[in-house]
Amino acid sequence: MCRWLAYSGSPIMLEDIVYKPAHSLIDQSLHSKLGVETTNGDGFGIGWYGHYDTPAIFREIGPAWSNRNLRELTTHIRSRMFFAHIRASTGSAVQQTNCHPFRSGRWLWMHNGMIAGFSEVRRELTLAVSPALYSFIEGSTDSELMFFLALSLGLQDDPPRAVARMVGLVEEVGRRHDIEHPVQLTVAVCNGESMWAFRYSSEGRSRSLFRSTDIEGLRALYPGNPTFRRTSDDARLIVSEPLGGVPEAWSEVPESSYVIARHGRNEIHPFEPIAA
Amino acid sequence: MCRWLAYSGSPIMLEDIVYKPAHSLIDQSLHSKLGVETTNGDGFGIGWYGHYDTPAIFREIGPAWSNRNLRELTTHIRSRMFFAHIRASTGSAVQQTNCHPFRSGRWLWMHNGMIAGFSEVRRELTLAVSPALYSFIEGSTDSELMFFLALSLGLQDDPPRAVARMVGLVEEVGRRHDIEHPVQLTVAVCNGESMWAFRYSSEGRSRSLFRSTDIEGLRALYPGNPTFRRTSDDARLIVSEPLGGVPEAWSEVPESSYVIARHGRNEIHPFEPIAA
Amino acid sequence: MCRWLAYSGSPIMLEDIVYKPAHSLIDQSLHSKLGVETTNGDGFGIGWYGHYDTPAIFREIGPAWSNRNLRELTTHIRSRMFFAHIRASTGSAVQQTNCHPFRSGRWLWMHNGMIAGFSEVRRELTLAVSPALYSFIEGSTDSELMFFLALSLGLQDDPPRAVARMVGLVEEVGRRHDIEHPVQLTVAVCNGESMWAFRYSSEGRSRSLFRSTDIEGLRALYPGNPTFRRTSDDARLIVSEPLGGVPEAWSEVPESSYVIARHGRNEIHPFEPIAA
Amino acid sequence: MCRWLAYSGSPIMLEDIVYKPAHSLIDQSLHSKLGVETTNGDGFGIGWYGHYDTPAIFREIGPAWSNRNLRELTTHIRSRMFFAHIRASTGSAVQQTNCHPFRSGRWLWMHNGMIAGFSEVRRELTLAVSPALYSFIEGSTDSELMFFLALSLGLQDDPPRAVARMVGLVEEVGRRHDIEHPVQLTVAVCNGESMWAFRYSSEGRSRSLFRSTDIEGLRALYPGNPTFRRTSDDARLIVSEPLGGVPEAWSEVPESSYVIARHGRNEIHPFEPIAA
Repeated sequence: MCRWLAYSGSPIMLEDIVYKPAHSLIDQSLHSKLGVETTNGDGFGIGWYGHYDTPAIFREIGPAWSNRNLRELTTHIRSRMFFAHIRASTGSAVQQTNCHPFRSGRWLWMHNGMIAGFSEVRRELTLAVSPALYSFIEGSTDSELMFFLALSLGLQDDPPRAVARMVGLVEEVGRRHDIEHPVQLTVAVCNGESMWAFRYSSEGRSRSLFRSTDIEGLRALYPGNPTFRRTSDDARLIVSEPLGGVPEAWSEVPESSYVIARHGRNEIHPFEPIAA
Repeated sequence: MCRWLAYSGSPIMLEDIVYKPAHSLIDQSLHSKLGVETTNGDGFGIGWYGHYDTPAIFREIGPAWSNRNLRELTTHIRSRMFFAHIRASTGSAVQQTNCHPFRSGRWLWMHNGMIAGFSEVRRELTLAVSPALYSFIEGSTDSELMFFLALSLGLQDDPPRAVARMVGLVEEVGRRHDIEHPVQLTVAVCNGESMWAFRYSSEGRSRSLFRSTDIEGLRALYPGNPTFRRTSDDARLIVSEPLGGVPEAWSEVPESSYVIARHGRNEIHPFEPIAA
Repeated sequence: MCRWLAYSGSPIMLEDIVYKPAHSLIDQSLHSKLGVETTNGDGFGIGWYGHYDTPAIFREIGPAWSNRNLRELTTHIRSRMFFAHIRASTGSAVQQTNCHPFRSGRWLWMHNGMIAGFSEVRRELTLAVSPALYSFIEGSTDSELMFFLALSLGLQDDPPRAVARMVGLVEEVGRRHDIEHPVQLTVAVCNGESMWAFRYSSEGRSRSLFRSTDIEGLRALYPGNPTFRRTSDDARLIVSEPLGGVPEAWSEVPESSYVIARHGRNEIHPFEPIAA
Repeated sequence: MCRWLAYSGSPIMLEDIVYKPAHSLIDQSLHSKLGVETTNGDGFGIGWYGHYDTPAIFREIGPAWSNRNLRELTTHIRSRMFFAHIRASTGSAVQQTNCHPFRSGRWLWMHNGMIAGFSEVRRELTLAVSPALYSFIEGSTDSELMFFLALSLGLQDDPPRAVARMVGLVEEVGRRHDIEHPVQLTVAVCNGESMWAFRYSSEGRSRSLFRSTDIEGLRALYPGNPTFRRTSDDARLIVSEPLGGVPEAWSEVPESSYVIARHGRNEIHPFEPIAA
């Protein structure tokens, strides 16, 4: 499993979110509190929007905690929307093409969770990827495959619906293979303007997911941080586990729901798979 | 494209073949003479048979020429049958799972060449992999896919026939996609007892491939090398381009043919794809 | 800090010691129980004696737990004497030349601990390295520098005396820089015939170190392991923390002492720094 | 040896200089025309000035030609002053701390060349580094040591004088060790405002170095490039070998001279070592 964070708001140096908070994502790479493993050292990645519609990605196979390039980049790169992810492999190879976030055009995708019995259902699910997209698959993870399935099922038009169809498909194929709980996920997806985050599992016991309550909460969280004092009120964070030491700044995303963050709005909706 | 060598014979230190000869594979990683590129720096690998039926593999993503671990291992590992490969990517990711040799059970496979128009035919060819084998695909190369196709088509029972069927399938699918010359390959495969090497291309202009004429030739090639003086007469080398400075020690493997090396025999046969 | 193990005895597959025992070194790379950190993911290394007097070393900068090459090599390499080490950097770069074991000729060296205030005393200590050895220093760790100091002070003639002189020097230089507890170490050193392990700290609170009590203990530890049933009675293990689930198989190496293992003997002696 | 480029001018996307020109630095990593080796694949680095006085650095140990992160970063990072370097090791380890550019505070340093007989003179030269700076040495190259010597000899106050003193020292120490031609260098150094480049060798046969004649030349070089059409007239490039296909756009930096580029000025001066 993995840990991740997603930011949307006024432009901010990445290090202010990725490194500086107490129990930052970097700290979680060694000492995750709510993850399946305490260590998330099987690669990492960041994706951010800058001068172009297409985001940049930087992904590496070593642990985040010791990576000097990550430290450099987050100190020098500002962005209004970015993802950061640390990976704990559940068996697939530690390689750059298995690191999150994944990108397709303007879209970024990252994931924590798993498709249960992946080796049994991988082939059938891969066949469901649009032939036009198929040859862009580069890695061997369930996470990347979920992204390509969602793209094949309309992610760019209606993200919540496409993710619901993807999950419905994974559940159907899994159950046909006698897999009791086919899917477990917290997924973040964005296109440079809006950001969606999903929390769902077939079992109804999904991995942890939290969102920042509001920018006032963040300011309380980092009273000495000049960046947050300057941050616009529409800043939003969605995280696998809370950063900082102010629990009130975070609210748990409920089971079977998803969050939309855009233009200062921060809505929450129920999430239900759509049967294939 | 790539360069490779395959050895079968009495046990020998890997460095005696991989590093010590003039124009060794390590030299070819920087200064290939007959390859498509002079530089083959996109990863490398060795596979060797030791105490078990199952061979060991060591693969890395950096260039061979500077890899200290490769230097160490070849200095300390002896083997009676081994493969060594240096990679020049034609676009697919530089990652361990794309490095040769590939392994399945007792079998090793390595390749130089390409499936033309791979992004167009990849999906259809992948569907032809046996569902039981599918989930063992870890990388994104045409080379690994060829291996899984050959395994699906009976490699373990009859290697020449399985490779012929694999090539026939690739050609059929390629031509259906209007690809003029669907495949280009020099492939080596072994199971710890026998070794096969294939040279073929749809175009009839295949990459270079050579075999050592006989051990007397090798002794002439390395007169000062005590290893070769001790080597049994059944030692055989198959290489992308000749090692050493004695051209007479090598004979070119003809277009559309394959070599079998086992038990001191070293036969050559014509190779023809079997239509799917 | 780090974790390590050292083996001497009849030839054994490295995996039997490095991977197979409960709470193996690989498990310690993620879940160390007695180390300063639970995670030891900043590189690793093995060194082993094979066909030659000079040992082989294999060192990599990623975590041990996910390294496929380490898995392959330990499955296929047998040795009568070997070291294995997992690193948790205390700040110096994660690079191959900072990974243990270090080698000079027939000698291997690995270390857990630190020279306190290293940035303050590094220059002065480096000046104490023999000019003839100086240019072989490749990394930036206190551990490698300790090795070169010990080599400069007669390691090859009398290891316990050279280590005692090295520690005496480090303490003297440290105290001159007002460092209260200049050194903390558990060090293993070997030359292919004998193996020494030292436990000492200026503070008198040294990192954990254990030795296997006897081969009967090991057999009890691994009743189902055919290797141990075949292992000669002179097999000896020295480890940062006990492997397996049989606490009686291990005895702690006392504070300020060192162990010699050779030819079936397994002696323990007091250790005292020799003032410079 | 190595290849490098240095840019100063109006802010520009790094890819416009590093990737897009004909015979770019990336092309030189595989096919250098004027370098000692055609392949420069032993690591690379970029350093750039952004929001802060302190520059960012990104350095990796693999070849530049296949590095996806380098491609991403240069596509998304703009800078008014940056360095880019590709390395061909002359023996020292391929590790991040041996990759250029090196940084100290606001200063960047990169180098092509060598200190002859480095293993013989390394210790004596290292002793000449200011004790206050000594512990910041992380790698094992002559290039980094030159930087620390120049820093110790006043680089931050008077770069040309400090480099002249450094070279004088290296020559004196080398000659005392009977080294005929102690130093060979093309060095670039900058502080975010000004940029200096030196060409010198004891032998009087220095590695190639070129500077862009003027921005009109660059515009002629890239007529279709909107960036250059927008570039201010003070843009300056200094390169190991000319980019693009317009030879007139470049003038060779003469033997034993150095260039200063700042505020639109682009001066050239003779360079002479200052004896220690």
